Amino acid sequence: MLFHVRMDVHLPETLDPAERADIVAREKAYSQKLQRAGKWPHLWRIVGEYSNISIFDVESNDELHELISGLPLFPYMDIRVMPLATHPSKI
Amino acid sequence: MLFHVRMDVHLPETLDPAERADIVAREKAYSQKLQRAGKWPHLWRIVGEYSNISIFDVESNDELHELISGLPLFPYMDIRVMPLATHPSKI
Amino acid sequence: MLFHVRMDVHLPETLDPAERADIVAREKAYSQKLQRAGKWPHLWRIVGEYSNISIFDVESNDELHELISGLPLFPYMDIRVMPLATHPSKI
Amino acid sequence: MLFHVRMDVHLPETLDPAERADIVAREKAYSQKLQRAGKWPHLWRIVGEYSNISIFDVESNDELHELISGLPLFPYMDIRVMPLATHPSKI
Amino acid sequence: MLFHVRMDVHLPETLDPAERADIVAREKAYSQKLQRAGKWPHLWRIVGEYSNISIFDVESNDELHELISGLPLFPYMDIRVMPLATHPSKI
Amino acid sequence: MLFHVRMDVHLPETLDPAERADIVAREKAYSQKLQRAGKWPHLWRIVGEYSNISIFDVESNDELHELISGLPLFPYMDIRVMPLATHPSKI
Amino acid sequence: MLFHVRMDVHLPETLDPAERADIVAREKAYSQKLQRAGKWPHLWRIVGEYSNISIFDVESNDELHELISGLPLFPYMDIRVMPLATHPSKI
Amino acid sequence: MLFHVRMDVHLPETLDPAERADIVAREKAYSQKLQRAGKWPHLWRIVGEYSNISIFDVESNDELHELISGLPLFPYMDIRVMPLATHPSKI
Amino acid sequence: MLFHVRMDVHLPETLDPAERADIVAREKAYSQKLQRAGKWPHLWRIVGEYSNISIFDVESNDELHELISGLPLFPYMDIRVMPLATHPSKI
Amino acid sequence: MLFHVRMDVHLPETLDPAERADIVAREKAYSQKLQRAGKWPHLWRIVGEYSNISIFDVESNDELHELISGLPLFPYMDIRVMPLATHPSKI
Repeated sequence: MLFHVRMDVHLPETLDPAERADIVAREKAYSQKLQRAGKWPHLWRIVGEYSNISIFDVESNDELHELISGLPLFPYMDIRVMPLATHPSKI
Repeated sequence: MLFHVRMDVHLPETLDPAERADIVAREKAYSQKLQRAGKWPHLWRIVGEYSNISIFDVESNDELHELISGLPLFPYMDIRVMPLATHPSKI
Repeated sequence: MLFHVRMDVHLPETLDPAERADIVAREKAYSQKLQRAGKWPHLWRIVGEYSNISIFDVESNDELHELISGLPLFPYMDIRVMPLATHPSKI
Repeated sequence: MLFHVRMDVHLPETLDPAERADIVAREKAYSQKLQRAGKWPHLWRIVGEYSNISIFDVESNDELHELISGLPLFPYMDIRVMPLATHPSKI
Repeated sequence: MLFHVRMDVHLPETLDPAERADIVAREKAYSQKLQRAGKWPHLWRIVGEYSNISIFDVESNDELHELISGLPLFPYMDIRVMPLATHPSKI
Repeated sequence: MLFHVRMDVHLPETLDPAERADIVAREKAYSQKLQRAGKWPHLWRIVGEYSNISIFDVESNDELHELISGLPLFPYMDIRVMPLATHPSKI
Repeated sequence: MLFHVRMDVHLPETLDPAERADIVAREKAYSQKLQRAGKWPHLWRIVGEYSNISIFDVESNDELHELISGLPLFPYMDIRVMPLATHPSKI
Repeated sequence: MLFHVRMDVHLPETLDPAERADIVAREKAYSQKLQRAGKWPHLWRIVGEYSNISIFDVESNDELHELISGLPLFPYMDIRVMPLATHPSKI
Repeated sequence: MLFHVRMDVHLPETLDPAERADIVAREKAYSQKLQRAGKWPHLWRIVGEYSNISIFDVESNDELHELISGLPLFPYMDIRVMPLATHPSKI
Repeated sequence: MLFHVRMDVHLPETLDPAERADIVAREKAYSQKLQRAGKWPHLWRIVGEYSNISIFDVESNDELHELISGLPLFPYMDIRVMPLATHPSKI
C-alpha cells in the first residue's frame, strides 16, 4: 500500500555540529535500511530545497507512522502524508 | 531527468457527457502511450480526490511542457511541477 | 485501518431540483449501506457548514478510493483524506 | 455534545529532557483520566505528524475550554476546535 | 452557550431579481424572529463587505446547526463557526 | 463606533515566570478598567485557544489604537481589527 | 478618520457590454462626487491589476459602509477595509 | 526600470473558439511588438501551466500599467507585478 | 512615481532595551528626513498592529530599494511593495 | 535549460557579525563565479525585500541542485524553483 510523503527539514541553527553530523548519518543509515527492506521504494530531493518526496510501501497506517516517527530527523521535519491508490490509466 | 507533477482535474458541469467521455478516453490513451515510451514512469491516484501524482522522465523542460500541454485534459486541470534531483541517501 | 475524511459539498445552483433531490437521496442510501457494513463508523455534520467529518475503516487505500469515488455526491465535493494511526495515550 | 479538536504539538528544542518527559507523562495521565470519564471518546494520531485528532463530549463550551486549557501540553500546542452536530444520514 | 459566526454572502449574478428580493426579505424576517427569541443577541455588518459577524446563544450544537441551516440565504453563504467561552478577565 | 478585534497571545517560552505573572495581572486590570469605562463592551475566549474575540466601542481610530497598543500583552499578541457597522436586519 | 480600502473588480464575462459601460460610467461619477466632497482623498490603480487602493476620510464606520456599499461596482468587487491611525513619526 | 510580472491565463470555457483564436493571435502580435520595442525583454512559459514569467523594461509605473492593461488577454489573466532593483552581486 | 509599501515590525524579544530605543529613534529621524524631502508623502499606522502603510514618491526602483533598505528597522521588518499608477477616475 | 529561482534570505539575529560578513562575502564571490560561467544569467533584487529573483541556465536538475545547495547562504534561505520553457510568442 503506497503513501506519498513530503519531508521538509528545519535543523535548528543552535544544533551542535557534531550532533548534527551524527543525526544526519543515522538518518541516512535508517533510510537505507528501509529502502533495502522495500519499505521506501522512492526517494527524491526537491531541487533547491532541503526537502524530499518519498513513496512508502507499507502494510498499514500504524506501520507507516512507526517508520516515519522513528526517523532520526523526525523532530526537525515538517511532514505531510497522502495515501495513494491505483490509477485507472496506469499500465 | 525527473519531475514531480500534481494534476487536479476540474471538469465543468456543463460539459456534454459524450464529449466528456471522449476526452477521458483520449487522455487515457495519451497517458498510456507516454508510459510505454518511458516518459511517464509513475502515475498514482490521490485517495479521495480527482487528482494524480505523476513522475515524468524527460530530456528537457521544453519536452516536459510539450508533453503536459498536449494532455487532452490540460484545459481542465490545475498542474504544479517540481524538478527532482538525486537524493544523497538513495541506494 | 482508519482514515479521517472531510467532505465539503458544493451543489451547482443550476442543478435541476428533482435531480438534486435524487442525488441527495442516493447519497443517503449509499452512506447508510456503508455504515451498516462497518466501513463508515463515524459521520458528523460540521456546525454551520454543508460539510461532514467522516471516519472510514477499510482494508486498503484502493478500497477507500473506490468507496469515496462511488459517492453520488462525489463530483460535487471537495474531499481531503488523512490516514490515522493508533495514539499511544488511547485507552 | 461533540467537538472535533485538532492538536499539533511543537515542543521547544530548548526544553530540558527531564521536564519534557515529565510533561508528556502528565499529558498521558490527564488524557486517560478524561477518556475514562467519557469526556474524550476518540483520540487518533495523524500519520507522520506529532498531531492528533480528538473528539470531545462535553456539556458546554466552558467545560471544553477548561478541559483543553488544563492539558499539560497546552502551552506547546496549536489547537483548532469545530463544533459537531448530528448528521441526517447517520444511522 | 455562545458561538461566534461569520457569514459571507455570495448571491449568484444569475438570480432572478424578484427571487432575490424575496430571499433577502425572508432572511430579514427569520433573523429578527431569532433575535426576538434571544437566540441571536448580536449582529453586525463588516464595513465594506456583504458579510456579518453574529453571536448566537443556543442550548446545543444541534440547535445551532438547525438555526443556521434554516437561514433563507444559507445556500448562498460561506459560514464559519467558533465556540466561545467565558473570558477570565470579563467583568 | 464598534470594532471587532481578535487577539492571539504568544508568550515567549523564555519569559521569566514572575514577569509573566506580572504582565498577565496588569493585562487583566487594564482590561477591566476599559470594560468599566464602557470602551470594551464584549470579551470572549475562543474555545481551545489562548485567544480572544473583543468588541471595542470608541470615538475614533486613534483612540482605538491608543487603547490596544497600551495593552501590557501588546508586544506578545497578533491582533486583527475590523470596523463594524449597523446591520440592516438588527432589531 | 482615515480608512485604507483595497478594491478588486471582477466583472462577470456574461455582463452585457452596454450594461457594463453604464456601470463603469456611474462608478466614475459616484467616485468623483465623493472625491470632490473630500470623502475619498486618495485613489490609486495597482499596476497590472483591475484593482485600486483608496483612502477614505469619514465621520464613522456607518458612513464608510454606506459610501462603499453605494458604489455601482459594489456587487462585483472584493473589498477589504483597514482602519488607519496617526503614525508617531508622521511630520 | 525592470519589473517582474507573472501572468496566469484563465480563458472561460464558454468563449467562442473563433473569438478565442482571435484574442490569442492579437495577444501574440501585441507581445511581439513590445518585445521588438525593447519594452518586454524576457518572456518564459512556466512548465506545465498556462502562465508566463515576464520582465518589462519601462520608464514609469504608468507606462507599465498602460502596456499590461492593453494586452488582449488582460480581462482573462491574474497578474502580479513586483518592482526589481539592481542586485549588488550582479556582474 | 508612487509605490505602496506595507511594513510589519517584528523586534526580537532578546533585543537590548537601549539598543531598541536607539534603533527606534534613528528610524524616526530617518523617516522624517525622507518625509521632509518629499520622498515619503504618506505614512499611517494600521490600527491595532505594529505596522504601517506608506506611500513613497521616487524616481526609480533602485532609489526606492536604497531608501527602504536604509531604514534602521529594515532587518526587523516584513515589507511588501506594490507599484501604483494613476487611476482613471482620479480628479 | 532555464529555471526561475526565488531566494528569501533570513539571517539569524544571533549570527556573529564577522561570520555574517564572511558568509555574505563568500556568497557574492560564489554568485559571481557562476555568473561568469554563464550558469546564472539573471539576478535581480526584489524592491524592499532581502530577496532575489534569479534565472539559472543548467544542463540538468542535478546540476541545479548542486549549484544552489552550494550557496554559502543556502542554510539561511527559503528557495522556490520553477522550470521554464520556451514561450511560443517569444521573438
